Amino acid sequence: MAVSSQVAVTIADIEAASELLAGFAVRTPLIESTALNERVGGRILLKAETLQRTGSFKFRGAYNKISSLDQEARSRGILAWSSGNHAQGVAAAAGLLGAPATIVMPKDAPAIKIDNTRNFGAEVILYDRYTESREEIGAAIADERGLTLVKPYDDLSIIAGQGTVGLEIDEQCQRIGAEADILLINCSGGGLTAGCAIAMTARSPATEIYSIEPEHHDDMALSLKSGHLVANPQTAPPTICDALMAPTPGELTFPIARELLSGGLSVTDAEVRSAVRYAYEILKLVVEPGGAASLAAVLSGHIACRNKTVCLILSGGNIAPELFTEIISDRDNAS
Amino acid sequence: MAVSSQVAVTIADIEAASELLAGFAVRTPLIESTALNERVGGRILLKAETLQRTGSFKFRGAYNKISSLDQEARSRGILAWSSGNHAQGVAAAAGLLGAPATIVMPKDAPAIKIDNTRNFGAEVILYDRYTESREEIGAAIADERGLTLVKPYDDLSIIAGQGTVGLEIDEQCQRIGAEADILLINCSGGGLTAGCAIAMTARSPATEIYSIEPEHHDDMALSLKSGHLVANPQTAPPTICDALMAPTPGELTFPIARELLSGGLSVTDAEVRSAVRYAYEILKLVVEPGGAASLAAVLSGHIACRNKTVCLILSGGNIAPELFTEIISDRDNAS
Repeated sequence: MAVSSQVAVTIADIEAASELLAGFAVRTPLIESTALNERVGGRILLKAETLQRTGSFKFRGAYNKISSLDQEARSRGILAWSSGNHAQGVAAAAGLLGAPATIVMPKDAPAIKIDNTRNFGAEVILYDRYTESREEIGAAIADERGLTLVKPYDDLSIIAGQGTVGLEIDEQCQRIGAEADILLINCSGGGLTAGCAIAMTARSPATEIYSIEPEHHDDMALSLKSGHLVANPQTAPPTICDALMAPTPGELTFPIARELLSGGLSVTDAEVRSAVRYAYEILKLVVEPGGAASLAAVLSGHIACRNKTVCLILSGGNIAPELFTEIISDRDNAS
Repeated sequence: MAVSSQVAVTIADIEAASELLAGFAVRTPLIESTALNERVGGRILLKAETLQRTGSFKFRGAYNKISSLDQEARSRGILAWSSGNHAQGVAAAAGLLGAPATIVMPKDAPAIKIDNTRNFGAEVILYDRYTESREEIGAAIADERGLTLVKPYDDLSIIAGQGTVGLEIDEQCQRIGAEADILLINCSGGGLTAGCAIAMTARSPATEIYSIEPEHHDDMALSLKSGHLVANPQTAPPTICDALMAPTPGELTFPIARELLSGGLSVTDAEVRSAVRYAYEILKLVVEPGGAASLAAVLSGHIACRNKTVCLILSGGNIAPELFTEIISDRDNAS
C-alpha cells in the first residue's frame, strides 16, 4: 500500500532520524528463538528494544525530538510528564544533548523509575495524581521557565524517531533473507505504531501490520474499527501493562495508523503474564508487561503464525523486581 | 601468537563446525549496552549465548560431536552425564540428529532441568550423587547398549563446536569495526575456553584471552600459573556458579589454554550475584550465575576496561526462578 501524501511523516524523515541516532541509540538485535519457532510453527523475529538505552524504545523519539530544537531552546531545557519509560528516555536523551530536563512524575510512581530518571540527570517534580493535574503543573512550569514540552507520541519528530525501529527491522530481515508477512506493534498512544507503520510500508509494502493492546485499553483497535478516534471507557479496569494505558490514540498518530494498519488486536492480562514468564524461562529476556503484549498475541494464538514470518517488538523491559518475581514464580501457570 | 602444530583442533575444524551448525544453532547477537560502557569507561561487547538453543552454548559442541558419528553409531544412540546445561544441549542436538539420547542426572538436580532434558526427548536416568558414581553407571549403560559417550569438554569435536562462539565474536566485531583488546571466557572444564581461544588467536591474534572462574574453583587459573594440571582443593566450598565446578581442566583443553591464554582470574559469589542482578536491572537479560562470571570480573574491576574493547561471553541463562528471585530482590546489594 502506498503512503498517501497526507501522512505528515515520511520515510525520509525516519531515515534522517536513523542517521542522527547512529552511535547514540543501540541498534538492537532481531532475535530468533528456535524454541519459539517450533512452538508456533512459524518464524518469529523479536526486535529487542528491551536492550535499548533506558530499557525501552522511548529514547529514540526523545533523542530525535530534542535534537530538532535550536541551541537556544535546548539550553533553556525541556519538560515531559510520564510515570515510566518516556521519562527515562527523555531524561537520557536530554542529558546527552546538554538540555536540562524537568520531568513531572506521580508521587506514587515506582521508586526505581523515579530514581532512574534522576540518575539520568533530570530534575523530577512529583505531583499527586489523585488531586493534581500533571498537564496543569507541567504547563505552568514550562511557561514559567521557557521549557519545550516533549510529548510522548503526538509529535512528528517523536513518530519519526520511533519509526527507526521499523527501519531496522526491515534491514535486519533483509540481511537474514526473511520476508515479514506480519508486523505486530505494542500500542499505547501510537507513536511507535505510526512510525514503524510508515517505515515498514515504505520498505516492505506486503507486510500486514497490527497494533496490539491490553484488553479494555484497546482504543486503537476500536478507533481503527470505527474509523474515528474512540476513547477507552472510563470504567476500564487497570491493566498490568502500565506502559499501554493511553486513553485514546493521538490526533497525529491515528490517521497514520488508519491508513496503514490491517487492524488491531487485544490480549488479556493473563496472556501477558504468560508471555513475560515465557520470555524469562525460554527466551532468557527480561520484558515488562507492556513490552510483551505482541508476544502474548503470538503465544496465545490470536495471530495465526503457522508457516508465516512474524516480526514483533519487545518494546520495553523496565519491570520492578517485585512484579517480575511474582510472575516468574507462578508455576501453576507455567508456559 | 601463532597456534603451535601441537594444538589438536585447528581453525579449519572450527570453521567446518560453523558451517555444520548454520541453521541449527542460533547465531547469537553481540550485544552492547551504553550504560555498561559508561560505567566502566570502555567498550564491552556481550556475546549472548543465553539466547542459544537450550539456553547455553553447550548445544554447539554437542551438535558438532553427534554429527561426527557414523549413521550406525548415531542410530544406537548417545549417552551423557550432566546435572545441567550439557544435558539439555546434548538432548536437543541428539533429537535433531535422530540419535536416541540417554542422560544420567543426579536425583536432586533441579526439577526444571530434569524436565527440560526429558522435553528434548532424552531418556533420563537418575542416580544418587552421594552413594553412586555417575561414571560407573554411565559406562555400564553405554557398554550394555552400545551407546557413544558425549563428554562435556575433553573431546576434539566438542572443543571445535564451542569454538564457533569465538569465530562469531570475531566476525561480529569486524562488522561493527571493533577490535577486541581482551576476550573473557567463563571456564569450567575448558571446552569453551579452548575452542574460543583457538578461533580468536587465529582470527585476531592481538586479543588477550583470560579464563574467568569462581573463587575456590579456579583450577584453570592455578593450572595456568603452575604450567601443569592442578585440581581444586577437596575442601573447596560450593559456589553459586553450578555450571563452573569442574575439579580440574581437561587433558585436551588445558594444553590449548596454556599455549593461548594470557592468564586466569577468579570472582567471588557476591560479585557474581551482583552481576546477575545488573544483567536483570540494566541489561534486561536473564543470566545464570556461571554465565555471569566474566561480567562480574568486568563490573567488579578485576579487568581494567578503561579505553579498552572487551568481549565476554554470557555463556548460559538457565537459572531456577527461586534463585533468580532471591538475587534480584536483594536491594541492599543493588548494583
